[in-house]
Amino acid sequence: MDHNKTVLGIDIGGTNTVFGLVTESGEIVQKDKIKTNSSDNVDLFFERLFQKLNDLFDRYEVLGIGIGAPNANYYKTTIEYPPNLCWDYVDVKAHIRKYTELPCALTNDANAAALGEMLFGAAKGMKNFIEITLGTGLGSGIVVDGKLVYGHDGFAGEIGHVIVKENGRECGCGRKGCLETYASASGIRRTVAELIGSTITKSKLREMDFNKVSAEMIYQAAVDGDELANKAFQITGEILGKTLSNSMAYLSPEAIILFGGLANAGDLIFDPVKSYMEENMLNIFKNKVKVLPSGLPESDTAVLGSAALIWEELKMQNAEEVK
Amino acid sequence: MDHNKTVLGIDIGGTNTVFGLVTESGEIVQKDKIKTNSSDNVDLFFERLFQKLNDLFDRYEVLGIGIGAPNANYYKTTIEYPPNLCWDYVDVKAHIRKYTELPCALTNDANAAALGEMLFGAAKGMKNFIEITLGTGLGSGIVVDGKLVYGHDGFAGEIGHVIVKENGRECGCGRKGCLETYASASGIRRTVAELIGSTITKSKLREMDFNKVSAEMIYQAAVDGDELANKAFQITGEILGKTLSNSMAYLSPEAIILFGGLANAGDLIFDPVKSYMEENMLNIFKNKVKVLPSGLPESDTAVLGSAALIWEELKMQNAEEVK
Repeated sequence: MDHNKTVLGIDIGGTNTVFGLVTESGEIVQKDKIKTNSSDNVDLFFERLFQKLNDLFDRYEVLGIGIGAPNANYYKTTIEYPPNLCWDYVDVKAHIRKYTELPCALTNDANAAALGEMLFGAAKGMKNFIEITLGTGLGSGIVVDGKLVYGHDGFAGEIGHVIVKENGRECGCGRKGCLETYASASGIRRTVAELIGSTITKSKLREMDFNKVSAEMIYQAAVDGDELANKAFQITGEILGKTLSNSMAYLSPEAIILFGGLANAGDLIFDPVKSYMEENMLNIFKNKVKVLPSGLPESDTAVLGSAALIWEELKMQNAEEVK
Repeated sequence: MDHNKTVLGIDIGGTNTVFGLVTESGEIVQKDKIKTNSSDNVDLFFERLFQKLNDLFDRYEVLGIGIGAPNANYYKTTIEYPPNLCWDYVDVKAHIRKYTELPCALTNDANAAALGEMLFGAAKGMKNFIEITLGTGLGSGIVVDGKLVYGHDGFAGEIGHVIVKENGRECGCGRKGCLETYASASGIRRTVAELIGSTITKSKLREMDFNKVSAEMIYQAAVDGDELANKAFQITGEILGKTLSNSMAYLSPEAIILFGGLANAGDLIFDPVKSYMEENMLNIFKNKVKVLPSGLPESDTAVLGSAALIWEELKMQNAEEVK
């Protein structure tokens, strides 16, 4: 048996469920995955998962289980009506208790990413920051005074659903003008479509089947000097930067950390975000806040974040016991 | 000597500095004030203040000093370039240390009001809420997990300076479209002025010297059935309600508490705030958040809030010592 103390980080995604054992310093000592198959009965899913996990429990000292999942309720350890899974309501804790009495905790993937960043990434040592995950949508995790903000019901930190344009773009949430309809991989694709309609700027993106235009292709076009693609990044950064200048008024964080697909575009997205954020910020906040890329390896963020959640819980429990 | 344990709450305002001794249950056992006279040398101000205070220290058991002031920096216990005082930069702690070694803490008046609300008012027992103070401007205090949010630099919680309309009304902060230019006593006056210009609605407010039209007069006109005055309240509540629906996405609080001048207009302001907030909120937050009037007597809020700040500090110190 390996006597490194580890925790288990599990990320339940639409396609795969990945998991790994993570040490307190953020080293991943074992990693594996199973297909999520959410059309399965949920009992069967946990049965398949624990077949794999029991093997790890035999070989390693595991202190707890942290889980990231869509529509996760931290307070109840439940998954409620997740958009990309076929399950309605999953009492995760009850399922886990059929197999193990280890401490467990659950939150959504953006919150987990924020904790991963605080323990192992770009926010090490920070007590006040905002993690923004720029994927298909826009997720966020808010850390205040060293702790994740869950709010009264466990669902705080939905900056992607701050309305930034009255009567703006239709959002999957049923409302209009949410930040994530502009600042995300799908958001920049919509911006390109609007620019194709509203301008006569030449662009190779005009010649493509729009359903096949990805954020990566827009990035590549921008790097190659395509004016319309560059304009799309500029607009995306402007809207995100202006929104973050308002976030400062709420939370005055030390840093904003950008993670995920669009953040990989580097200066193309960071430059307009920084300049519009600074320009629109209340005076007392100017020149104080950092905008940083994530310090986590993208492929391991889900496992590291989920593991960070339970490392944090275990630390808090220890602190309580010392009291 | 009175053996009730008390703390001293001091509120430094533009005209008066009020102070009082407050018990742990929120009873004010002594209250007094001096003129602030901020054109005085600041040494002289503290000398005059402590002449009054030393008398209290002789007669009561005082455990600490909490202070509310404009542009207060909680982390440094300083007042920095306050708009309504003639002092530039006041090291409050250094001044206090000339007279007493009692624990002291300083924050701005809206933060102090939030803590007062949590200990003695409408937020008793709540751990996540937002206090909105509707005075000449709009102040706010954000409580997360039972603690005031100060952010990285001590200046978090400036919801009055969230930009709610791009290229909107000019704000005293030098930018445009800040929430407080719409939702505050001065904001509703500006809305009346705009309505006088943009509509032909009959109103007795048209016949008045505009410089003399106060928020109270607009309230009275609205109660008397004046259509334009009612429209002004509706617009004010709409903008505040929509902004608070975005605040939910950040913080998911249990309650929003409205305090101060405009909040005294009751249903005229609460009704549109509630309905626009609910209507514009992300689905998962609907029908969860309360919008409540303050539970503090308006004339004592400044003293109770400042006292709550130091009661909270003393509790945290005790908790630390037990560790």
